[in-house]
Amino acid sequence: MKTHVLLWQCRDQKGIVAGVTEVIARHGGNIVTADQHSTDPDAGLFFMRVEFNLDEMSPESGGFIEDMQAVAARFGARQSICDKDVKLRMGILVSRHDHCLAELLYLWRSGDIGAQIPFVIGTCDGNRQLAAQYGVPFHYIPATREDPRESEILGIVSGKADFLVLARYMRILSGDFLRAFGKDVINIHHSFLPSFKGAHPYRQAFDQGVKVIGATAHFVTEALDEGPIITQMVESVSHRDTVDGLIRRGRNLEKRALAAAVAGYIDYRIIVAGNKTVIF
Amino acid sequence: MKTHVLLWQCRDQKGIVAGVTEVIARHGGNIVTADQHSTDPDAGLFFMRVEFNLDEMSPESGGFIEDMQAVAARFGARQSICDKDVKLRMGILVSRHDHCLAELLYLWRSGDIGAQIPFVIGTCDGNRQLAAQYGVPFHYIPATREDPRESEILGIVSGKADFLVLARYMRILSGDFLRAFGKDVINIHHSFLPSFKGAHPYRQAFDQGVKVIGATAHFVTEALDEGPIITQMVESVSHRDTVDGLIRRGRNLEKRALAAAVAGYIDYRIIVAGNKTVIF
Amino acid sequence: MKTHVLLWQCRDQKGIVAGVTEVIARHGGNIVTADQHSTDPDAGLFFMRVEFNLDEMSPESGGFIEDMQAVAARFGARQSICDKDVKLRMGILVSRHDHCLAELLYLWRSGDIGAQIPFVIGTCDGNRQLAAQYGVPFHYIPATREDPRESEILGIVSGKADFLVLARYMRILSGDFLRAFGKDVINIHHSFLPSFKGAHPYRQAFDQGVKVIGATAHFVTEALDEGPIITQMVESVSHRDTVDGLIRRGRNLEKRALAAAVAGYIDYRIIVAGNKTVIF
Amino acid sequence: MKTHVLLWQCRDQKGIVAGVTEVIARHGGNIVTADQHSTDPDAGLFFMRVEFNLDEMSPESGGFIEDMQAVAARFGARQSICDKDVKLRMGILVSRHDHCLAELLYLWRSGDIGAQIPFVIGTCDGNRQLAAQYGVPFHYIPATREDPRESEILGIVSGKADFLVLARYMRILSGDFLRAFGKDVINIHHSFLPSFKGAHPYRQAFDQGVKVIGATAHFVTEALDEGPIITQMVESVSHRDTVDGLIRRGRNLEKRALAAAVAGYIDYRIIVAGNKTVIF
Repeated sequence: MKTHVLLWQCRDQKGIVAGVTEVIARHGGNIVTADQHSTDPDAGLFFMRVEFNLDEMSPESGGFIEDMQAVAARFGARQSICDKDVKLRMGILVSRHDHCLAELLYLWRSGDIGAQIPFVIGTCDGNRQLAAQYGVPFHYIPATREDPRESEILGIVSGKADFLVLARYMRILSGDFLRAFGKDVINIHHSFLPSFKGAHPYRQAFDQGVKVIGATAHFVTEALDEGPIITQMVESVSHRDTVDGLIRRGRNLEKRALAAAVAGYIDYRIIVAGNKTVIF
Repeated sequence: MKTHVLLWQCRDQKGIVAGVTEVIARHGGNIVTADQHSTDPDAGLFFMRVEFNLDEMSPESGGFIEDMQAVAARFGARQSICDKDVKLRMGILVSRHDHCLAELLYLWRSGDIGAQIPFVIGTCDGNRQLAAQYGVPFHYIPATREDPRESEILGIVSGKADFLVLARYMRILSGDFLRAFGKDVINIHHSFLPSFKGAHPYRQAFDQGVKVIGATAHFVTEALDEGPIITQMVESVSHRDTVDGLIRRGRNLEKRALAAAVAGYIDYRIIVAGNKTVIF
Repeated sequence: MKTHVLLWQCRDQKGIVAGVTEVIARHGGNIVTADQHSTDPDAGLFFMRVEFNLDEMSPESGGFIEDMQAVAARFGARQSICDKDVKLRMGILVSRHDHCLAELLYLWRSGDIGAQIPFVIGTCDGNRQLAAQYGVPFHYIPATREDPRESEILGIVSGKADFLVLARYMRILSGDFLRAFGKDVINIHHSFLPSFKGAHPYRQAFDQGVKVIGATAHFVTEALDEGPIITQMVESVSHRDTVDGLIRRGRNLEKRALAAAVAGYIDYRIIVAGNKTVIF
Repeated sequence: MKTHVLLWQCRDQKGIVAGVTEVIARHGGNIVTADQHSTDPDAGLFFMRVEFNLDEMSPESGGFIEDMQAVAARFGARQSICDKDVKLRMGILVSRHDHCLAELLYLWRSGDIGAQIPFVIGTCDGNRQLAAQYGVPFHYIPATREDPRESEILGIVSGKADFLVLARYMRILSGDFLRAFGKDVINIHHSFLPSFKGAHPYRQAFDQGVKVIGATAHFVTEALDEGPIITQMVESVSHRDTVDGLIRRGRNLEKRALAAAVAGYIDYRIIVAGNKTVIF
C-alpha cells in the first residue's frame, strides 16, 4: 500500500473536494489526511493537499491519474501527485559557515530528513571534511562575486538534484542560473525578512537595537531576499547581545528554520502561490 | 448564504471524505475549509471539521440533514452540524480574581468573541461593577467550599447557557452539578498541567525553581484539573521572579489561554476524543 | 525605609561600581538589586541601575545626593535618582482602537501598573465611556492630519504628565510638540520594526506573506517609527490568517508589548543610549 | 589582562557590593559586568556574579585572593574565583541517542562551547564514530541497569573531568558514584519537569494530550529527575503529533536546552542554591 500526496490549486468554486475525493474513493484509495485552504473571496483561490493510500498506482494501471487529470481540467486546476516513497534528491551549496550544513547532514543521517543528498558544493575546501564524515560527495568550487562559476555548478546539479538548498551560500545565483536549473531553490537568510535584506543583517539588527532577531527560509527568486517565505524563526535578544552574540544565537535560528523548511518541502507540504506560500 | 460547520468522528475507514463531501456538493453547498485528522493506525480514529456554505438549510427543507445522517450511520460516526450565525450562550463563573473575566468581556464587546453572555455569576460582589460596565447581568452567589450553592447556580444556568466558562472560579463543581448541567464547562488552570494540579500552583512552581510557567485551559471533568486540555500557554521566568511576580505574569498567560480556548470553542473547532482534544 | 533607583551612564572606566556602591554603603543604604552593562570596547559605554533602600533621603538631609553627584562628576556620568514610592503620572492618547487603552486601564486598576493616570485624550468620543468606567478624566480632541490640534493637547499635558503613552494614537506628533512637552513619549507600532513602518502594517505583512508578525513599543522621535525600541513581541501566523485575522491577533501583541514597555518605564528600568535602549 | 569571575552567595545584608567592589578597585581591577540577586526578605539570600579584569592575579602575587577571602569571611559568604581563560574539562556520557552529543561536539568545534572534551563514554559502540570525527577519545562501556559498571566509569572520569554531561545517558548514576566523583553532573531530561519524570516522557505527554512539550536540563542529584533546574525549553504541539513526532521534535528542544545549560555552566553563570538555580 503506497502513500501519495496530491497538491492542488485552482480558483475557488463548488464541488472541488467532492470531485477529488470521489476519484480517490472510486479507485479504492484511503485518505490519510487532507488540508484545504480558501483565500478571502476577493482573491478567490483554493489550495488543497491530500495524502492518501492507494493499493496500486502507476501511469499504466488503473487510470487513476487520468481520472484525476480530468477532474483537474474540469476545475482549471494545477495539480501534482507525488509518491511519498520516492526520496527527493537535495543538492546543497554552502560557503564558509557550516552550521546549516552540519544540521542538515545530521538530520539526514538520523532519518529526520527523508531525502537523498547527491552532493555538497562548497566555496571553501574546509567543508570537504564535514561532507566526507557523512559520506556525501563534495565539490570544491571557489565561486566569488566576480567569478560565480555558475556553469560549472550547473554541470554538477543538472539532472542530479530535484531541488537545491543554499545552506548559507554567500553567492547570489543569477536569473540565468535559476532558469537553467528550472527547479526549486531554498535559501536561508539570516534575518527576519523583510527587515535587513542584503549583507550583514546581524550588524544591521544590532545597530537598530531590535529586541528580537530572526531567520527566514525562502524560495530563491531573481530579486535578492524577496522570494516566497517558507519559515521564520525568532528569538528575543537584549542590549547584552553583541554583534558576535547575535551571530552565534542566530545560527541556531538559521539551522532550525532551514531544517523545518526542508522537512516541509520533502514532505510535499508547500504550495507556492504568487509571492507567498501555503504550508499545509 | 449561511455558513455551517460539520464536526465528525468515527473509526478510520475508506471513503469518509468522499461520502461527506458528496452530500454537500449534491445539495449545492460550497466547502469553505475542511480539516481531517487520522490518529495512528492502532487507535484508528478519524476526525473531521468541514465549514461550508449552503443556500438554504433547515430540518424541514431539502433533506440535507437526513442525507448527512444517513452517511454518518453508514460510517458509524458521531456528527453535529452547527450554524455559525447562531451565537452560543456563554455563562461565566468567577471568584475574586477578575483578569480573565475582564479579558473575556472586552473581547466580547470588541467582537473578537462572537458569543452571547447571558450572565456572570460571581462569588464576590466586587465583580458586579465589571459586569455592569459591559451591561451583563450579574448574580452574586458567595459559594464556599462548605456551601457550594450548586442548586442555586444550576437554577441560573439551566436552559440559559450553552456552555460555561470558569474564569478563575475557585470552587470545585461536583459531578452531580456537571451531570445536571449536561453541557461543556471550560476551566482555566493557572499552571502548565499536569504539573502543579490543585491549589497554589505558582507557589509550587516557585518552590520547584522551574524556568517556564504556564496556564492550561481544559474541559472540566469530575477529576480535578484532569479534563481534556484545550490550550496551553507558557512563558520563560527566572530566579528574579518572586511568587507574586509569577502570579502577575501568569495572569497574562491565563487570560490568553482561556480566550483562545473560548474562541476555538465558539468557532466549533474542538472535538473531544477520550481524555484529549482535536483542535482544528 | 524608602526604595530608590539610580540610573547611570558614562564612559567605561575602572572603579565605577566601587565608587557608587561605596557612597550607598557609607550612608547606610542597602542594595536590593543592581545591574551593569558594558558595551563592546569600541563603543566603551557603561550603564548601571541600582535599586537600594536608604533610611532617609531628601535633598536637605544627609548629603547623599551631593555625594553621589560628586562621584558622577568624577566619572563624567549622567545619573538620576528616582523615588520608587512616587508614582509617575502617565498621560494616555488614543484614537479609535481602544484595546491598548483597555489593557493599560485594567492593569492600572489591578495594581500591575503602578502609575497615576491623570487623563486620557481621545480623538473619538466613543472612548469616553471606557475612561469613565475607570474614573479617569477624558478629553475629547478630534485631532486630524490636517488639524492636529497640538497646542490644545499641549495645554492639557503640560505640567500634568511625567510621560505620555500613545496607545494606538493614529496622529503623528510634530517635533515642535515633542520639544515643547520635553518628556518621554512611548508609542506602540503594530509591526515588527523596522519592517512595515507607516500605515497598514498588517496589510503589508499579509502581502509579504510573512510567517511571524510583531508589535513594537518604542520612544517617539521626530523620525516616524524610528525611535529607540523598548519591547517587541511576536507570534507565528500562517496562510490561514487573513488581514483581519492578523489585525485581531496583533491586538494581543500590541497590548502586551505596550504594557511591558510601560511597566519597565515606571519601574525605572530603561536607559536610552543613542537610538537604542538598555533595559535592566 | 586576564578576566575572572567571582561567584558569591551569602545572607542578604548591607554593604556587600561595596565591600567586594572596593577590593577589586583597590587592586586595579575593572568590572566588566556584574549581577546581583536578592531573594524575598523571608529567605533573605544574596547572590552575585562579578566578571572583572585584573592585570595580574595569582595566589602568590598581590594578595587579591586573600583580601577577597577576608571580605567573604566578614559577610559569611561562600565564594569562588574562576579564571575565564582556563577551559573546563567536560566529560560526556551518552547512550544510543546521539543528537545531544552531536550538538555539543559541533558547538565545541565551532568555538561556541569554550570547554575541553577529554572523553566521551558511550553505552553503544555505534557512537564511537561520531566522537572519532571530532577527534575525541571514546570509551565503550556497555553499562546496563543490572551492571551499571560505575567503578569503571569512575576510573575514567576521576581527575580528568571538571564536570560531567549526561547527553541522553539512559542509566541512573548512583549516589555512591555522585559522591565519589564529587563534582557537578548535568543531565538533560526529555520532558518539561516536574511533568513526566522517569521513562517514556513523550509517551506520557502524548497520552495526556498536552499542547506544549518541553525539555529540562538540570543538575543530577540522587533523587531521579529532581535536581536543580538549569534551563527549560518548550514548543507547541497539536493532535497531529504522534509519539514519534513528539520524540523527533523533542530532540531539537533537548539539544538546545542542554547546550544552553552547558554554555551557562562553563561561563560561570550558574549558582546552585538549595534545589534551585540562580542563572546570571
